[in-house]
Amino acid sequence: MSGIPLVVAEEVAQALAEGRAVVALESNVITHGLPYPDNAATAVEVESAVRKGGAVPATIGVDGGRLLIGMGEADIERFAATPGIPKAGNRDLPVVLARGGLGATTVASSLVAAELAGIPFFASAGIGGVHRGAQATMDVSADLIQFTRSRVAVVCAGAKNILDLGLTLEYLETQGVPLVSYRSDDFPAFYCASSGLRSPHRIDDPDVVARVVEHHWAAGGRGVVVTSPPRPEDAVDPEVAESAVRAALAAAERDGVTGNAITKYLMRAVDEATGGRTSRANMAVLVSTAETGGVLAAAHARHRSALR
Amino acid sequence: MSGIPLVVAEEVAQALAEGRAVVALESNVITHGLPYPDNAATAVEVESAVRKGGAVPATIGVDGGRLLIGMGEADIERFAATPGIPKAGNRDLPVVLARGGLGATTVASSLVAAELAGIPFFASAGIGGVHRGAQATMDVSADLIQFTRSRVAVVCAGAKNILDLGLTLEYLETQGVPLVSYRSDDFPAFYCASSGLRSPHRIDDPDVVARVVEHHWAAGGRGVVVTSPPRPEDAVDPEVAESAVRAALAAAERDGVTGNAITKYLMRAVDEATGGRTSRANMAVLVSTAETGGVLAAAHARHRSALR
Amino acid sequence: MSGIPLVVAEEVAQALAEGRAVVALESNVITHGLPYPDNAATAVEVESAVRKGGAVPATIGVDGGRLLIGMGEADIERFAATPGIPKAGNRDLPVVLARGGLGATTVASSLVAAELAGIPFFASAGIGGVHRGAQATMDVSADLIQFTRSRVAVVCAGAKNILDLGLTLEYLETQGVPLVSYRSDDFPAFYCASSGLRSPHRIDDPDVVARVVEHHWAAGGRGVVVTSPPRPEDAVDPEVAESAVRAALAAAERDGVTGNAITKYLMRAVDEATGGRTSRANMAVLVSTAETGGVLAAAHARHRSALR
Ligand SMILES: [Mn+2]
Ligand SMILES: [Mn+2]
Ligand SMILES: [Mn+2]
Repeated sequence: MSGIPLVVAEEVAQALAEGRAVVALESNVITHGLPYPDNAATAVEVESAVRKGGAVPATIGVDGGRLLIGMGEADIERFAATPGIPKAGNRDLPVVLARGGLGATTVASSLVAAELAGIPFFASAGIGGVHRGAQATMDVSADLIQFTRSRVAVVCAGAKNILDLGLTLEYLETQGVPLVSYRSDDFPAFYCASSGLRSPHRIDDPDVVARVVEHHWAAGGRGVVVTSPPRPEDAVDPEVAESAVRAALAAAERDGVTGNAITKYLMRAVDEATGGRTSRANMAVLVSTAETGGVLAAAHARHRSALR
Repeated sequence: MSGIPLVVAEEVAQALAEGRAVVALESNVITHGLPYPDNAATAVEVESAVRKGGAVPATIGVDGGRLLIGMGEADIERFAATPGIPKAGNRDLPVVLARGGLGATTVASSLVAAELAGIPFFASAGIGGVHRGAQATMDVSADLIQFTRSRVAVVCAGAKNILDLGLTLEYLETQGVPLVSYRSDDFPAFYCASSGLRSPHRIDDPDVVARVVEHHWAAGGRGVVVTSPPRPEDAVDPEVAESAVRAALAAAERDGVTGNAITKYLMRAVDEATGGRTSRANMAVLVSTAETGGVLAAAHARHRSALR
Repeated sequence: MSGIPLVVAEEVAQALAEGRAVVALESNVITHGLPYPDNAATAVEVESAVRKGGAVPATIGVDGGRLLIGMGEADIERFAATPGIPKAGNRDLPVVLARGGLGATTVASSLVAAELAGIPFFASAGIGGVHRGAQATMDVSADLIQFTRSRVAVVCAGAKNILDLGLTLEYLETQGVPLVSYRSDDFPAFYCASSGLRSPHRIDDPDVVARVVEHHWAAGGRGVVVTSPPRPEDAVDPEVAESAVRAALAAAERDGVTGNAITKYLMRAVDEATGGRTSRANMAVLVSTAETGGVLAAAHARHRSALR
C-alpha cells in the first residue's frame, strides 16, 4: 500500500526524533484569512509565538501530491502570495493530493496530517462548531468529528461566536471529546474571553494538561480540546460581539446569504460593526493561542520523556 | 507511552485469566443514586446478583490516578459514604485520572475501563439516550456513541422513559449498534416492561446472544446492546409512568429546570407522583438486570471456551 | 477469537489473489426490490455489467451462519425465488449470522462483508441518506455512518430523491466522507442526472479516482463515495421526479404511513405517478452504476499493482 509522501522540515524532523515539542498549524488561515502581505507576516508571527512558548512550529500544507510538515519562510510566502489555492478540508485532502498543486489545510485536515507525522499538538485560534440554526440545516463542522479520530491535542480560543456555542458543547459531549480550559472557568468565544458557558474542567497547570492528554490516549481516546482565552487586552466584550453577530445574521438573511458563504460574510459584517476591533482581536488571538500551544506542547514533551 | 494503571481485584483477575465470566458495573449509581447507606447495600446486592447469574462482578471506579477493576466491600463502602465524589463520564475520565482522588464511572466511562481490562460484558439498569426535545437542544447521551467504540456487550433494561425512546432507537440504528432483546418483544423502558416500541430482535436463548456478540466483534463491530425487561412483579405500568413523566416535564418547565440538572429533577418528581413506586422498581431493576448480565456473560464465556 | 466464516466464490478468490479488480454488490436489491423472476434476471445483468466494466462481481449474502462473497447463478436464483428472506442491515448482520438461514445484505452490511473479504470496491444504484423531516424524526440511514468505518469505495448514482439530499450532503461533510462525482458536476439523484446540488469534486479520469481512494486510505480514512450519474437516455427529469415525490409524501401523510414502511410506499407511488418511468430508470441505473463500478475498480487495481 502507498503511504502519503511527507516533506518534513528538517527542524521539525529533528525535534520529533529527539522527543522535543512540536505544534502543528493550519495553512487555511494564511490563504483564506487576511489579504497579502498581512497573511504572510501574521503566519511568521504565529510561528514565532509557538517558539516563544517552547516548541517548534510545523505549518501544514499540500504541495504537488505531498504533505508539507513544516514550512520555511519561502513556503509561507508562496502560500500567502498565490491566489486561488484550494481549501483542503479533511474530506477534500485525498482529492487535492491526487490532483497535485497547492492546497491549504483546515483544522480537520491539519489534524490528519499531524497524526501521520507524529505531531501530538495542534494550535488554532478557533475551531469549527455547530452552526446557529443547525437544528434545521444540520450544518456542523467536520472539525468536531475529526476530534474523535485524530490522536492530537487541539489548543484553541474556543469557537467563533457566529456559531451556536451551547450546541457545540453538547455535540462535543455526545462525541465524548474531553474539553479542558486552561486558566479560565468558561469556554471562550474566540476573541471573547467567555462565551457565557461554563467549561466542564478548568486546569491551571500545564503538567496536568499533559497528563490529561496522555491518559486519554492511553485509554484509547483520540482528540482533546484545550481552550485558552484571549489575553484581557485583546478580548472583545461579549455583549458587543453578540449584538454585532445578531445584526450580521439579520443582514445575511436579508441578503439571502447561505451555506458555505455565510461564515466569511458574518465575520466581515461583525468586523465592520465593531470598527475593525474583531479583526485586530483575531490576529492577537492567533498569536496568543499559538504561544499557549507551545507552552502546553513543551509540558507534554517533558512529561513524555519523564515516562520513558 | 504510558498505560493507565489498573488495580484489578484478585477474583476478577483470576476469572479473566481462566476465561470465566466477568460483568463490569458502574460506580456512578453508588455515588449519584440512593442516599447512604442504601447505596452501599444495593451495590452489594447488585454484585450478589451478578454472582447468582454465574459471573464475577467488577465494579469500576477511579482512585488516585488508577482505575479500580472490581471493588471489595471496603471500596464500595468508601464510594458510598464519601460525599462529593465527582462523576467521571467518558470525556471526564482522563481529567479525573490526571487530578487524582476518587471518581465515579458512568455507563460510558465504565465501558472504556472494561475494555482496557478485557471484560466483555457490562450491566446497568438503564443506559442514556436521546433526550426529549433533543431536536432543539441536541442533548444526546455520550453512552450512545461510546457503544460504537468499546468492544463490550451492554446488558440493560433499556433506557429511562424520561428520554425520547423512539429517537433513541433511531440514533442507535443510524450508528449501526446491534440491539437485541432477551426474552421480550419490546424495547423496555427501565422500570416498564415495554416502551411501546418493538425491538428489532427478540432472542430467548443465551447461547444465541453469545454468538451475536462474538459475530459482531469478528466483523469488526464494537458495542452490542442487550435489553432485559424488569420482572413482572417489579414493573411499573407504562401509562402511569408516562403520565408522571409528562407532569414532571411540565413542572420542570414551570420551575425553569434545564440542562444536566433535569434528569435528577424528573426522576424525583416521577417518584413522588407514583408514591415511591418508581424508586422501588429502580432498585429491583438494578438487581434483576445484573443477574441477567451474569447469565449472559456466563453463556458467552462458555461459547468462547468452546471456540478455543 | 472466532472469525466469521466466509464462502468466497472461486472466481472472486482468484481475482483477489492476483490483485485483479472485484466489485461487491448487495443482495437486498434482489430480495426486496423487483418481483421474481425479474429480480434474478436483473441481478445477473448487474453482474454482467461489472464484468463489462472490467471487474469480477461479488454479490454478498448470508447463508447458514456464513457470508457468501460472490454468488453463482444458483445462489442468485435461490435468493431471488425464496420468499421472506430477512434484510440484514449492519446492525442485524451478527443476529442473522447467529440465527442461521438466509439473509440479504444492505449497502451498509455489504460494506462490512466486503472489507472482511478484502474487496476494495462496492457498487449500488443508490445509497441511503438523511430522510426528509429528519430534523424531527432523526431518521438517518446507517449507510452514512458505515462509510466512516469500512475501508471500501462506494460507487453509486447518489441517493434517492425521496430523501433530503441537501441534508445528506451536509451529514457526509460533517462525517468527513470524501465525495467525488465521476464525469458530472452535480450530485446525482439516483434516476435523475442531477439533484440540483453541486458536487464538491468532479473527476473525469478513472486513474485520479483510484489515487483519491488510495490517498484517503493512506491517510487513515475509510469510505469514499463516488457518484456516477444515470445515462442521459435512462434519466428521469428532476422536476417530474420531484413533483411525484411531493405528491407521494402528501399521500403517505394522508394514509398515515410512517417509519420503515415509508420508503417502499414512496417508491411505488412515485413509480405509479410517472407511469412506470422510475422503475424502468431504476433498473437501468442499477446496470450502468455496476458497469462504472467495474471501470473504476479496474483502474484502482491497475494503480495498486503499479505501486507494488
Ligand atoms: Mn458546514
Ligand atoms: Mn447531555
Ligand atoms: Mn431509518
